[in-house]
Amino acid sequence: MKRTLIKDLDQHIDEQVTIQGWLHTLRDQKSMQFLIIRDRTGLVQVAHYKKGNLDLAKTISDLGTESALRITGKVVKNEIVKLGGLEIQLEDLLVENAAQVPLPFEPFGEYLPEQDFRLDWRYLDLRREVNQLLFEVQTTAVQAMREFWLQENFIEINSPKIMGAPSESGAELFSLPYFDTTAYLAQSPQFYKQMAMAAGFERVFEFGPVFRADPSFTSRHMTEFTGVDMEMSWIDSHEDVMRLTERWLAHTIQRVVEKHASEVETKLGLHLEAPMVPFPRISMAEAHKLLKEIGYKLPPEKKFDLDPGAERAIGAHFKEIQGHDYVFITDWPFASRPFYHMLHPEEPGLTRSFDLLGKGLELATGAQREHRYDVLKAQALEKGLSLEVIQDYLNYFRYGTPPHGGFGFGLSRFMMVLLDLPNIREAVYIFRGPTRLTP
Amino acid sequence: MKRTLIKDLDQHIDEQVTIQGWLHTLRDQKSMQFLIIRDRTGLVQVAHYKKGNLDLAKTISDLGTESALRITGKVVKNEIVKLGGLEIQLEDLLVENAAQVPLPFEPFGEYLPEQDFRLDWRYLDLRREVNQLLFEVQTTAVQAMREFWLQENFIEINSPKIMGAPSESGAELFSLPYFDTTAYLAQSPQFYKQMAMAAGFERVFEFGPVFRADPSFTSRHMTEFTGVDMEMSWIDSHEDVMRLTERWLAHTIQRVVEKHASEVETKLGLHLEAPMVPFPRISMAEAHKLLKEIGYKLPPEKKFDLDPGAERAIGAHFKEIQGHDYVFITDWPFASRPFYHMLHPEEPGLTRSFDLLGKGLELATGAQREHRYDVLKAQALEKGLSLEVIQDYLNYFRYGTPPHGGFGFGLSRFMMVLLDLPNIREAVYIFRGPTRLTP
Repeated sequence: MKRTLIKDLDQHIDEQVTIQGWLHTLRDQKSMQFLIIRDRTGLVQVAHYKKGNLDLAKTISDLGTESALRITGKVVKNEIVKLGGLEIQLEDLLVENAAQVPLPFEPFGEYLPEQDFRLDWRYLDLRREVNQLLFEVQTTAVQAMREFWLQENFIEINSPKIMGAPSESGAELFSLPYFDTTAYLAQSPQFYKQMAMAAGFERVFEFGPVFRADPSFTSRHMTEFTGVDMEMSWIDSHEDVMRLTERWLAHTIQRVVEKHASEVETKLGLHLEAPMVPFPRISMAEAHKLLKEIGYKLPPEKKFDLDPGAERAIGAHFKEIQGHDYVFITDWPFASRPFYHMLHPEEPGLTRSFDLLGKGLELATGAQREHRYDVLKAQALEKGLSLEVIQDYLNYFRYGTPPHGGFGFGLSRFMMVLLDLPNIREAVYIFRGPTRLTP
Repeated sequence: MKRTLIKDLDQHIDEQVTIQGWLHTLRDQKSMQFLIIRDRTGLVQVAHYKKGNLDLAKTISDLGTESALRITGKVVKNEIVKLGGLEIQLEDLLVENAAQVPLPFEPFGEYLPEQDFRLDWRYLDLRREVNQLLFEVQTTAVQAMREFWLQENFIEINSPKIMGAPSESGAELFSLPYFDTTAYLAQSPQFYKQMAMAAGFERVFEFGPVFRADPSFTSRHMTEFTGVDMEMSWIDSHEDVMRLTERWLAHTIQRVVEKHASEVETKLGLHLEAPMVPFPRISMAEAHKLLKEIGYKLPPEKKFDLDPGAERAIGAHFKEIQGHDYVFITDWPFASRPFYHMLHPEEPGLTRSFDLLGKGLELATGAQREHRYDVLKAQALEKGLSLEVIQDYLNYFRYGTPPHGGFGFGLSRFMMVLLDLPNIREAVYIFRGPTRLTP
């Protein structure tokens, strides 16, 4: 059986075709039935003259919207039909999977139920046009990310998500029974991508799940998300990482623009443009000064850090003065960074690190890593870590590990920012939070 | 600082360059020191005249092999040097990270320690040439897989690995405390890629970790591995899935051949060739007949199944008679398949399913899935499953889910087969087994 996609029907005028898709709407009139059928490529009207086949007319009348159908018929030109000026004259219809009636909600109805209910029926929610578009855009974006790295001679790795020891701090850590012992879920591939530097891979990237036992219920947190990670050797400082990062992201968005800009404009009312390179940079010290100038008050516990409001304010500032959506905040205090970030030799309270903001939201955290065994041990001790717990990691730095750095980047946060989505739960295929483990 | 890669040195004869890499070997002679330096792209000899700089000579004498170095010097032609007929006359050397002495083992020594010890020091083991090649080949292969699917309009998804209910059977399942409840690690993305079919995505693929609490210690099992999964809608039978699978795999190997065939030949002594399409197919019934003919005795508990020896025998048979490394075994008995495989309408004891063998090793399992809600429920009950536990999954089939099928494929098994590796522990970046959680 040869299927014709709806977008290609205009090449089959006056021919018999078979299409496959969902019953989008049904207008059941006195003598005629009009079925609007949807597949991934578009919509088409199918007309059925009831008296031609009364049994079939009965079947159609009983169909619930969103049923999965296979339809055979003749494509004819019909100027008065809005959907492409053509319709299919129904000859045969096979119900592949009838939708029960009523649906939990109408994905194409005028009023959408609240988010939590839509998440319960995520697959119906995903049938909405904007959601299909989102994952088409994401598919293009991740492929562009990899394409860029492959041109730069990166190696792709898949590191284990089950670990024998915590990867960073003990906070927000999931643990599990593992045969006769206890294992932990990776909070990032940090240690393993650095291991690739110790292995002489020089440049690696990874896409994979990241687990955080984070009890918060914000619009941007999840207990499991797709991390996009890279690490590169033989750098001089974090500036080398930032330079590659901005080119990488600009390339990625450029590819999305080429492929989806007009559809994004039509369906989301959003104008997409690749960002200019270089991205603006502001040091943490300057950022704190800027916040004072614009009157943003950081809570006292964020003395060495930023809070989400401050990030939004900084993002808005650079949007206003430079028209730029992306900003690097550099040189964070060691107090707010993990033990393995390298310190500035001339200012040991500061790290060679950065965050990347997109429209005021933290997308990535990066740094040059400390690769000198003794210095790294001292920094771990300063943070109060047990050297025993991280000994496997420390061992990576004993036998010739070059200077290196990299970043971790949240894919769904990027999709939120790129497509102006209000909540990460709308940006991810299936959301996981403290109280959401289904579907 | 501008780095020159070792492979590009011949374009810099008589120029001063800076290279970065590892001390591969050191010949410390009376008046001269010869350092062989390695980076990801090759080896080069660096010559140092000791009297030119006695301090530096001392530093070099103290260097352990595998130290990470930055070296500046002049590239000169030298016909007697085996490595490319050139060498670098040392001017400056910076020790980025000195290797402690002695190394746990010499990755480039003549005798390698046993596997388990090498896994303890995996990053040193990964410095070996064949391992670097392996992950370069894998990087090419996975990109080719995605490239193929993107040309066929697939969408990439990242499904959650933490689930509220077991994904398949309760066997070999890791569970973990999740806030106030219990969660499970995904044994496959099966349910979620089928959910994408219910969502109308039509064609999806995913690369992600798969977790199996499998206590076995064979050469082909791991408790965590990278699964390559796809699912496609509107198929007529499992034959549609197999046709796409064989083209996909042939394309993938073709890309590897184009990029790495000569290096694989040189370094592994292995001749790579893309397989012919179509792959041979044999039904399970025919396979059992064949095994009888060639005198292979299946253990009685494998009456509806195959064991690894049988798979090797079938693989060897097709290699002999057709010269083919890949074989589909089709139409497995329902007794040896999960509840969601679709039954043959004319032979309800058999499923519309297949395994793909590569050189006699199971690489993939695929099938057309049962998409009819009532039939699926009946099949689950027949397998003794609790409908309550799988209700979220069953719900996917209530509101218009088209016929569909797909496969799950083990990436490291494929690398084993492609590169003739004896053990999966040599084919994966970091191995996880019942007693191995480190590094």
